[in-house]
Amino acid sequence: MVKYPKINYMGNIMLNFESDYIKGAHPDILKALIETNDEPLSGYGRDKYTSLATDCIRAECKAPSAEVYYLTGGTQANKTVIATCLKLDEGVIAPATGHVSLHEVGAIEYTGHKVIELPALEGKLDIDKAEAYLDTFYKDENNVMMVRPGMIYISHPTEYGTLYTRAELERLSDICERYEMKLFVDGARLGYGLCADGTDVTLADLAELCDVFYIGGTKVGALCGEAVVFPYGAPERFWSLTKQHGAMVAKGRLFGVQFYTLFKDGLYYEISRNAIERANELKAMLREKGYPLYLNSPTNQQFVILTNSQYEQLSKSVKMSFWERLDGERLVVRFATSFATTKEEIDELAKIL
Amino acid sequence: MVKYPKINYMGNIMLNFESDYIKGAHPDILKALIETNDEPLSGYGRDKYTSLATDCIRAECKAPSAEVYYLTGGTQANKTVIATCLKLDEGVIAPATGHVSLHEVGAIEYTGHKVIELPALEGKLDIDKAEAYLDTFYKDENNVMMVRPGMIYISHPTEYGTLYTRAELERLSDICERYEMKLFVDGARLGYGLCADGTDVTLADLAELCDVFYIGGTKVGALCGEAVVFPYGAPERFWSLTKQHGAMVAKGRLFGVQFYTLFKDGLYYEISRNAIERANELKAMLREKGYPLYLNSPTNQQFVILTNSQYEQLSKSVKMSFWERLDGERLVVRFATSFATTKEEIDELAKIL
Amino acid sequence: MVKYPKINYMGNIMLNFESDYIKGAHPDILKALIETNDEPLSGYGRDKYTSLATDCIRAECKAPSAEVYYLTGGTQANKTVIATCLKLDEGVIAPATGHVSLHEVGAIEYTGHKVIELPALEGKLDIDKAEAYLDTFYKDENNVMMVRPGMIYISHPTEYGTLYTRAELERLSDICERYEMKLFVDGARLGYGLCADGTDVTLADLAELCDVFYIGGTKVGALCGEAVVFPYGAPERFWSLTKQHGAMVAKGRLFGVQFYTLFKDGLYYEISRNAIERANELKAMLREKGYPLYLNSPTNQQFVILTNSQYEQLSKSVKMSFWERLDGERLVVRFATSFATTKEEIDELAKIL
Amino acid sequence: MVKYPKINYMGNIMLNFESDYIKGAHPDILKALIETNDEPLSGYGRDKYTSLATDCIRAECKAPSAEVYYLTGGTQANKTVIATCLKLDEGVIAPATGHVSLHEVGAIEYTGHKVIELPALEGKLDIDKAEAYLDTFYKDENNVMMVRPGMIYISHPTEYGTLYTRAELERLSDICERYEMKLFVDGARLGYGLCADGTDVTLADLAELCDVFYIGGTKVGALCGEAVVFPYGAPERFWSLTKQHGAMVAKGRLFGVQFYTLFKDGLYYEISRNAIERANELKAMLREKGYPLYLNSPTNQQFVILTNSQYEQLSKSVKMSFWERLDGERLVVRFATSFATTKEEIDELAKIL
Repeated sequence: MVKYPKINYMGNIMLNFESDYIKGAHPDILKALIETNDEPLSGYGRDKYTSLATDCIRAECKAPSAEVYYLTGGTQANKTVIATCLKLDEGVIAPATGHVSLHEVGAIEYTGHKVIELPALEGKLDIDKAEAYLDTFYKDENNVMMVRPGMIYISHPTEYGTLYTRAELERLSDICERYEMKLFVDGARLGYGLCADGTDVTLADLAELCDVFYIGGTKVGALCGEAVVFPYGAPERFWSLTKQHGAMVAKGRLFGVQFYTLFKDGLYYEISRNAIERANELKAMLREKGYPLYLNSPTNQQFVILTNSQYEQLSKSVKMSFWERLDGERLVVRFATSFATTKEEIDELAKIL
Repeated sequence: MVKYPKINYMGNIMLNFESDYIKGAHPDILKALIETNDEPLSGYGRDKYTSLATDCIRAECKAPSAEVYYLTGGTQANKTVIATCLKLDEGVIAPATGHVSLHEVGAIEYTGHKVIELPALEGKLDIDKAEAYLDTFYKDENNVMMVRPGMIYISHPTEYGTLYTRAELERLSDICERYEMKLFVDGARLGYGLCADGTDVTLADLAELCDVFYIGGTKVGALCGEAVVFPYGAPERFWSLTKQHGAMVAKGRLFGVQFYTLFKDGLYYEISRNAIERANELKAMLREKGYPLYLNSPTNQQFVILTNSQYEQLSKSVKMSFWERLDGERLVVRFATSFATTKEEIDELAKIL
Repeated sequence: MVKYPKINYMGNIMLNFESDYIKGAHPDILKALIETNDEPLSGYGRDKYTSLATDCIRAECKAPSAEVYYLTGGTQANKTVIATCLKLDEGVIAPATGHVSLHEVGAIEYTGHKVIELPALEGKLDIDKAEAYLDTFYKDENNVMMVRPGMIYISHPTEYGTLYTRAELERLSDICERYEMKLFVDGARLGYGLCADGTDVTLADLAELCDVFYIGGTKVGALCGEAVVFPYGAPERFWSLTKQHGAMVAKGRLFGVQFYTLFKDGLYYEISRNAIERANELKAMLREKGYPLYLNSPTNQQFVILTNSQYEQLSKSVKMSFWERLDGERLVVRFATSFATTKEEIDELAKIL
Repeated sequence: MVKYPKINYMGNIMLNFESDYIKGAHPDILKALIETNDEPLSGYGRDKYTSLATDCIRAECKAPSAEVYYLTGGTQANKTVIATCLKLDEGVIAPATGHVSLHEVGAIEYTGHKVIELPALEGKLDIDKAEAYLDTFYKDENNVMMVRPGMIYISHPTEYGTLYTRAELERLSDICERYEMKLFVDGARLGYGLCADGTDVTLADLAELCDVFYIGGTKVGALCGEAVVFPYGAPERFWSLTKQHGAMVAKGRLFGVQFYTLFKDGLYYEISRNAIERANELKAMLREKGYPLYLNSPTNQQFVILTNSQYEQLSKSVKMSFWERLDGERLVVRFATSFATTKEEIDELAKIL
């Protein structure tokens, strides 16, 4: 009777590449939760593990005075950050394929702010077009009747697995400075971006160039949790505002322990690197077997074009995500790797493809 | 640099009765998380454990067609439920000391709805005064200019540990029916209410009399999570609306596994009963030693009046919560028990008091 | 079929004291609208009459750098001002009988902000209790979970016709400064306050002591319009924000011409003084004839206690406003005078009472 | 000091085609305001003129049970209607050039709802693309994470002066029925659409095909006011909701008298027809003199392409609206006619062009 759409237990399927959140947590995280379980700790993030996690993150970011807050999930982080950073008449620029544009049931608008959707290229904001938009906006005498662009939102990796270069982030940062906007990077899958082959973007780069970004836990080995980093300071009374957004958790230790575990010895990178290596193997295999890739993703999400019959056949033994229909004959599916994906699973998949 | 107010690690204090969320989770819950960790499960509540948890809760509630949704915490549950159940011009009646009235940084108002604060008696809504308010409201010709009362919110147990009787809930339910309002029970600490001595209110009673209520996990042994029960059906597309509120968690298994563990064999009641027994021992001891109770709470929160010097002395070896100042000489403190409170801790406390 | 509640045309009733907005506008205002009708003027307040009105208001306020904006009505002014002056986690303190507390269908909450209702005395905020509230709030460790008081809202005259003294306004202004709040005065009937016998509050006093207030037109002789005055500057891009609130009028001249007419030669005071004189006559007459006054209002609204049979009898020939029921036998009614009330009408009423 | 952007008094310019709201009101409207000025009338739309206006509008619409409400301006009408008609997770489809998309400082988003911007053709919604969007939306398994399209918003005439045909409105109405959406027509300049040459759309057509539309007064000869028509019934307690939106005016007679005057003897059509005739003369003249039209508008707004030097020269003696820049050499300007535009003004313009 409960109205969750399309329940699918996936029980009997051997291989599962449906998403990067199909398994629980990395075993080290569960271990840490058990080891710290009996310690009495103050609530709402005022515990020592949260403090230690923040120390680690500041160190990784080379941002010793960054403020770090821990929220439960991506949409919650997006809406809380955007609503508290924007002024009343401001909206947030986002690529048309961005998570805040499409897949949050209007969570941003529900806080009273417009998502200004601008063209995307393979998931990335088309920076030329964004710049042209801003130029036109500021030349338009009627812009006093329009939503002022107050922030640029991008995701890194994007919803299509693609990445910005350091040069592109610098350019976005410059644009934001020029037009008095904030730069916000949704890092729900940030680990996979940081550990991709060929990227030149580090946590320290993000902390230097962004006003706010988050380090995703949910999709990178944690049970839940996103670490929101404000390198240069958060909006006034941000902690109270997370309460107002229903985003404050009583047992804040849940985030503290997880993120401390992820960052104290590099586990976050290790997890991410595993997913990248498996994705690379997957990509090589797909190419070898002649499956066309929809685009060239350097991260843990791989988008493949299948014919209808290939899809039907493959679905019998592999779980993947339907992404979009290309035409009557072909569709795009997504394979995602994660902390838990093994070489054996890739080899198994090779036999089927 | 992070602006969490008043960090307090509690590290060196032997005894801790500060709250019912100072420890992690009941060991059985951690065990279940580990045992299910490797199973690939679909996200957003579409997994088998969530389904099993819902089956258990429906059975306990004797409400086979109830809809059950799992949210992260109490404020999130309150705001999501209230905002989706009320019509645009409606507000929610709540006791002036209620959580939604006082301690959610205006989360309800942030969704656009007024909290109509009415007098409270030891944390409970003064039902006579609520009825008088409604009677006056509907006789007032100008009520078309006023916020229409669309719901009654109460907590059970209340913020002061007190409980409603079945007769009182029936009366509230009747009032709600008469004035076309919904009845919503915040059960952040529901277990402690269900297992208190002398209560005549069961889950099945709540399911019969309420339009919506929730079964708190965070403060009753879980890491996080509240099970929101709509015995007669949820607002249209409620699942999507939780996304809009930033209240949907990708790894919904986190709630499914925890609530299934709490309800499959009665662990929820066992945890709650432990807290009640320890609270009873505490209460008896306080009385015996001549500490006046602020009010008579039958649940896991005990409110005690201390003199300033008692408080100062006690604070050296016991952690408790400052509640409010009575006068220049005296104050009220709260002792809370939980799933993790042991008989030994109570005995230890006895030596100090 | 249209669902306006309780249509009442009042057609056949000779005497009408129902409200101060039962007639159209002062004839001079209509005359000015006609005389300026053919002039082409830019829209949205960018016309010369709006500019002239603002010059007059600045001069009256002795606030040469005040910003003045013209909105349509009281609720619109209240919600637009409060929503744009408060920060996200802030609420507005108001007397429990205030317009924003009771009679705006939750317009303030609809913008996301709590109205913190504090005790009122004859319509006025009980300043002692407000101060005690603030003192307690700032001593409460848990106030980080509470709505921060960011503004005090009062009306002058109040909804009960009563007035603050200059000393009381100074005290409120001091409290606001001490607790970093804004002071906002709803002046929907301001003229009647400025021209009451014995008041020591002028426009210049308000401009000195308030952060924002408005000079009501709708109830003081205009067709519509409230002049919102920010003596020390308005919120950033306030003009654009009025558009967002649906509070910007294309033919801004409508306000410009009316307020210029009201203020260029003192018409606003003349109108107000007429209402006060008629109200004084009414009050004297009521006292003489032994009708008990509900309270002592020095302005244009007079609240009288009638028995049921007096009310029934009187209603046959006089229109007044039902205010509230005192008990089974007695009720309170309101008589309002305005720019249009004549000595003859008072004399006529005398014959009937 | 007041921060209205770019004050421009237009004082010395002989000819003014800047907009259709540069003059006051049609003289008959002012006359009616004067004639009814002394009648005591109940407030908030509960007066006989509002009732008479509604009777006239129902008759014109051939919709005897329509509900009609009178709001102050277009943005206010748009936001109040959209916010009260949509469900929480719904957004409104609008052409990308629509007023709600671009020029209301995010007023719709401020009420919590997304404007789903779809491609426009000369100001009109591209119906083929809208239909394709809806088809794709309902085939997308992930649409439970997306904003549900709950309404289609169009303006008639559009912001570019263009018109829908009856067949197009029928098609939109069918699409709305198929996908359970509402059809809303912004008629801020509706008169000019109804009286354009060659249109086959009448008020009765709109009342038949729309769920809600409004008949603009502000830009069609009134001082202010838009009559919002719900042919099949308004949202529950809509009257109270207008109060919540700050959209209720105490002296509702202001709208009642104006709309009664506009509709009792056909003045609304007469005014509109005058503007159309003048616009036709203007168009013929522009064509004759070789000025290229930006598009072919059949209504009172004419969009003309000028070179920079033509614009500079013309600006010395004629006021028009800058619309947009085409390239370095050319720009688009708007000439608007209205109730007040005379044949003499067109002749005068001919001498200059």
